[in-house]
Amino acid sequence: LSKAEQRTAVPGVATGLAVTGAGGDVLYIEASLADAETGGTGLTLTGQLGDVMKESARIALSYLRSRGAELEVPVGDLKDRGVHIHVPAGAVPKDGPSAGVTMTTALVSLLTGRPVRSDVAMTGEVSLTGRVLPIGGVKQKLLAAERAGVTTVLIPKRNEADLDDVPEEILSRLTVHAVADVREVLHLALEPADSRHAVAA
Amino acid sequence: LSKAEQRTAVPGVATGLAVTGAGGDVLYIEASLADAETGGTGLTLTGQLGDVMKESARIALSYLRSRGAELEVPVGDLKDRGVHIHVPAGAVPKDGPSAGVTMTTALVSLLTGRPVRSDVAMTGEVSLTGRVLPIGGVKQKLLAAERAGVTTVLIPKRNEADLDDVPEEILSRLTVHAVADVREVLHLALEPADSRHAVAA
Amino acid sequence: LSKAEQRTAVPGVATGLAVTGAGGDVLYIEASLADAETGGTGLTLTGQLGDVMKESARIALSYLRSRGAELEVPVGDLKDRGVHIHVPAGAVPKDGPSAGVTMTTALVSLLTGRPVRSDVAMTGEVSLTGRVLPIGGVKQKLLAAERAGVTTVLIPKRNEADLDDVPEEILSRLTVHAVADVREVLHLALEPADSRHAVAA
Amino acid sequence: LSKAEQRTAVPGVATGLAVTGAGGDVLYIEASLADAETGGTGLTLTGQLGDVMKESARIALSYLRSRGAELEVPVGDLKDRGVHIHVPAGAVPKDGPSAGVTMTTALVSLLTGRPVRSDVAMTGEVSLTGRVLPIGGVKQKLLAAERAGVTTVLIPKRNEADLDDVPEEILSRLTVHAVADVREVLHLALEPADSRHAVAA
Amino acid sequence: LSKAEQRTAVPGVATGLAVTGAGGDVLYIEASLADAETGGTGLTLTGQLGDVMKESARIALSYLRSRGAELEVPVGDLKDRGVHIHVPAGAVPKDGPSAGVTMTTALVSLLTGRPVRSDVAMTGEVSLTGRVLPIGGVKQKLLAAERAGVTTVLIPKRNEADLDDVPEEILSRLTVHAVADVREVLHLALEPADSRHAVAA
Amino acid sequence: LSKAEQRTAVPGVATGLAVTGAGGDVLYIEASLADAETGGTGLTLTGQLGDVMKESARIALSYLRSRGAELEVPVGDLKDRGVHIHVPAGAVPKDGPSAGVTMTTALVSLLTGRPVRSDVAMTGEVSLTGRVLPIGGVKQKLLAAERAGVTTVLIPKRNEADLDDVPEEILSRLTVHAVADVREVLHLALEPADSRHAVAA
Ligand SMILES: [Ca+2]
Ligand SMILES: [Ca+2]
Ligand SMILES: [Ca+2]
Ligand SMILES: [Ca+2]
Ligand SMILES: [Ca+2]
Ligand SMILES: [Ca+2]
Ligand SMILES: [Ca+2]
Ligand SMILES: [Ca+2]
Ligand SMILES: [Ca+2]
Ligand SMILES: [Ca+2]
Ligand SMILES: [Ca+2]
Ligand SMILES: [Ca+2]
Repeated sequence: LSKAEQRTAVPGVATGLAVTGAGGDVLYIEASLADAETGGTGLTLTGQLGDVMKESARIALSYLRSRGAELEVPVGDLKDRGVHIHVPAGAVPKDGPSAGVTMTTALVSLLTGRPVRSDVAMTGEVSLTGRVLPIGGVKQKLLAAERAGVTTVLIPKRNEADLDDVPEEILSRLTVHAVADVREVLHLALEPADSRHAVAA
Repeated sequence: LSKAEQRTAVPGVATGLAVTGAGGDVLYIEASLADAETGGTGLTLTGQLGDVMKESARIALSYLRSRGAELEVPVGDLKDRGVHIHVPAGAVPKDGPSAGVTMTTALVSLLTGRPVRSDVAMTGEVSLTGRVLPIGGVKQKLLAAERAGVTTVLIPKRNEADLDDVPEEILSRLTVHAVADVREVLHLALEPADSRHAVAA
Repeated sequence: LSKAEQRTAVPGVATGLAVTGAGGDVLYIEASLADAETGGTGLTLTGQLGDVMKESARIALSYLRSRGAELEVPVGDLKDRGVHIHVPAGAVPKDGPSAGVTMTTALVSLLTGRPVRSDVAMTGEVSLTGRVLPIGGVKQKLLAAERAGVTTVLIPKRNEADLDDVPEEILSRLTVHAVADVREVLHLALEPADSRHAVAA
Repeated sequence: LSKAEQRTAVPGVATGLAVTGAGGDVLYIEASLADAETGGTGLTLTGQLGDVMKESARIALSYLRSRGAELEVPVGDLKDRGVHIHVPAGAVPKDGPSAGVTMTTALVSLLTGRPVRSDVAMTGEVSLTGRVLPIGGVKQKLLAAERAGVTTVLIPKRNEADLDDVPEEILSRLTVHAVADVREVLHLALEPADSRHAVAA
Repeated sequence: LSKAEQRTAVPGVATGLAVTGAGGDVLYIEASLADAETGGTGLTLTGQLGDVMKESARIALSYLRSRGAELEVPVGDLKDRGVHIHVPAGAVPKDGPSAGVTMTTALVSLLTGRPVRSDVAMTGEVSLTGRVLPIGGVKQKLLAAERAGVTTVLIPKRNEADLDDVPEEILSRLTVHAVADVREVLHLALEPADSRHAVAA
Repeated sequence: LSKAEQRTAVPGVATGLAVTGAGGDVLYIEASLADAETGGTGLTLTGQLGDVMKESARIALSYLRSRGAELEVPVGDLKDRGVHIHVPAGAVPKDGPSAGVTMTTALVSLLTGRPVRSDVAMTGEVSLTGRVLPIGGVKQKLLAAERAGVTTVLIPKRNEADLDDVPEEILSRLTVHAVADVREVLHLALEPADSRHAVAA
């Protein structure tokens, strides 16, 4: 199993792309729901997330609380079960709005029990209405995705022009989808539900 | 569809006007209500809002909690459903009281299911009694509105004199309404409810 | 209608007097109560209030919670309905204890539905037992009141000596009441309840 | 009526003694209880109190919550009714533990409806078991008490030696009691309950 | 009565030992429980305690909440009654983990109604499982204990070697017990329950 | 009994490994559960833990709340009983993500009543899905483990290459397991449940 296959083997984990001091990198966003009988409540955010990234998590959650039912996501689980979103590595500070699509995808995967495709990575800010807004670092993020063995990358529609800066050699190895609404992300990134993961974690 | 048409296509989004380091700009204020079965509560504010802008959101909400019933807004939805107000872009710090009318309009749009007119942008501080108080940057805001394809702009009555500073060419392309009470804003900015948006988001 | 008449037209708004960098000024203190069916609770304070001014609001509220019933104020409304006190302009920092009488008056106006007289402005710290304690800036405040068209000003009894510093010309245009207990303020500043405002906002 | 008679005319107010930049001063500690039907809860502290002085208020309250019943204080009122302790003047920062006896006395006066004697002032730290612990500034505090027309002063037993520093002339005009337990303070400072104050404020 | 006899005369007070700028000193740790009918809840810590010392109090409380029943301590009282731990003098900052045994002893004394022996002082960090861990300043603490008329001192087993530094003359006047588990402290420091203190304060 | 045997004699204590200013060191992570009748709730963290280490505790708890039932851990105890995790020594600041496996093990030991093997020490970050992620200081940690008499050490699979830096002499005295999932840690570190510890502390 590749690293991404290992990490995304269970529902609730999605592969994001970040810009770091040393270029780009792949990161995994993990989400969990407390079993109702354990009494956990509220939203817990860990991974040394900065203010903007914490707000992204709140936006993803509010998006599902207000529009998840239309998407046929079983959002009733959010009522009595605590949600935890963690972004390893635990000691590395992270910030910025570009993990919005990844957080939304991890949460929908968790709630529906549908795993995220291990060959897909994504980047994009999400607005409260589900619009995918442009982000920075497209070139570094695609280089990192390709290095990590990802084959499909989702970027914001409004970042399409940035693909001109990405070497042809890299682009030839990636399928890139430019998306305007987070529903397109969910459609492209989630595997169908299957019997192996019948109950959300 | 124009950008404003896309962004304001659903109830709960209103077009505001801001002064930035580089002149004026259009911004979209998004509001959402958690579905009751998801257990979300309270008021969540995101978009790197400064203290004054956060207070504007609290004023808009209290205005509706105390006077919304008179305006025939179904304010009972505020009781058990969490409200979230977000102002993209998520990483850009924003502050000031001039989004008061825009926040109030987004909330009323959300609660009534009436979309905001996509050709209308607005600016104005709102007091707790619904008075529209003067703001700064009228010239830059009207230039930005015109640039963005907006055709109707709502400004505070007490800013009418500032229109003298706006180039004739710009004014000729805009319908400007100077308003003293936020009820005038709601009257001018909200579309009638229609069957496409029968249930508030 | 004069500005003060417009601002104090609804119950819950009282006219205060403040010392600013540029002399004195009139300010309006607005109070609102959340309709019970909207689920608002607690005390919300906005208008960039400093610590001392926030404490004044808490004192005014506790005064009514402990002694309001004796004054025949319907204080039961404070139980399940959120109180919001706002002091425009929203972006201007304000501080000091001298708005105590004004906050108490705005709250009593709100709870009783009796509007505050638009020709009355006031200044004075209030203690938890309703004593009116002395404040600074009497001269600047009276000049500002006169400029704003106010005809009656309420000041603390213990500031009476400061009237010597106020120009005769100003004093001749104002009726000044020096008060020792906030009940005198309420007696002088509140209009009788009338049918136009039968229900508190 | 003297100033102290005015201030302590209602139950819930006790006269304390403080050291200020300019010698000593008399201060009034005011306590109130929210009427149960107003929904106020918790402990509110105002008057720009420092951390140590806020802790004194919590100690006074816990003392009554654990030992008040033995003193026949009706402590059940503390359950559902918010307590507010305020120390005017509102804008003057205050700190230190020496208002402990005064806070305890104000609270017992409030709960029992017995006014505090207007001719008594007091100073002393209180421990959680009701011990009166030594404080500083005995000389300045007694000078201030005498200046204010107080005739009886309560000080900690362990400060008795400090009386040597107080001018004979001042001591001759004051009755000084040195106390070791806050119950002695309550015995000396509280008037009997009377019909004028049958219900606690 | 000696000072220690006075201070520890009621259940809930234990004598600790601290290192100060001027050598060592005796300190009294006081604990109280709110009577259930007064509505006090939670844990209140006063005495200008630093972060580490506040954590010691939380450890002492959790130790009793998880293991108190095995020690036949009536821990059910912790459920609905607020706990307050205070360390006079109120204005003196204090910190460090060495009051752990003293806090645990004061709480057990309070809950069982068994007073702490007035001739015993103690020092030692406590772990969450009740292990007594080593502390600093053994020499200064024993000197302070002897000066204060204490005759029995409890120290951590792992500090036994530090007794070599204590003058023979001091040791000859003290009975020193070196303990490894806080249960030994409770056994040595608590008086039997008697009829004078049948109900915990 | 060795020190590790003493410390880990009760369920709820696990032996971790840390890097300190002076090389490596063994540390004990203690967990406790409040008895339900004592009213303790929530998560309490003590031991001067830094932000990252506090997040590790939250991750360990969420892991058990979402996946503990699959591991047959009786997680229902987490609902009404407060959890406390403490890391002695109380005054020594600690930080970093590498205690994740140790915290998870201490909690599972506590909930199941199975003691942790006294001859096992461990280090490793844990992700929200139970992945064991790499940490730093393998060499110093193994030296410290050997010094402390530990015979079995658990390290992250992704740290296996770091074993090359550890002296042969040390490795020859230790059994080192490299693990990828925290379930392997639990399998290797927990003793079987026995009659001596039938009820979790
Ligand atoms: Ca990303
Ligand atoms: Ca919806
Ligand atoms: Ca605006
Ligand atoms: Ca209303
Ligand atoms: Ca009353
Ligand atoms: Ca004023
Ligand atoms: Ca008692
Ligand atoms: Ca005093
Ligand atoms: Ca137990
Ligand atoms: Ca000690
Ligand atoms: Ca470790
Ligand atoms: Ca599960």
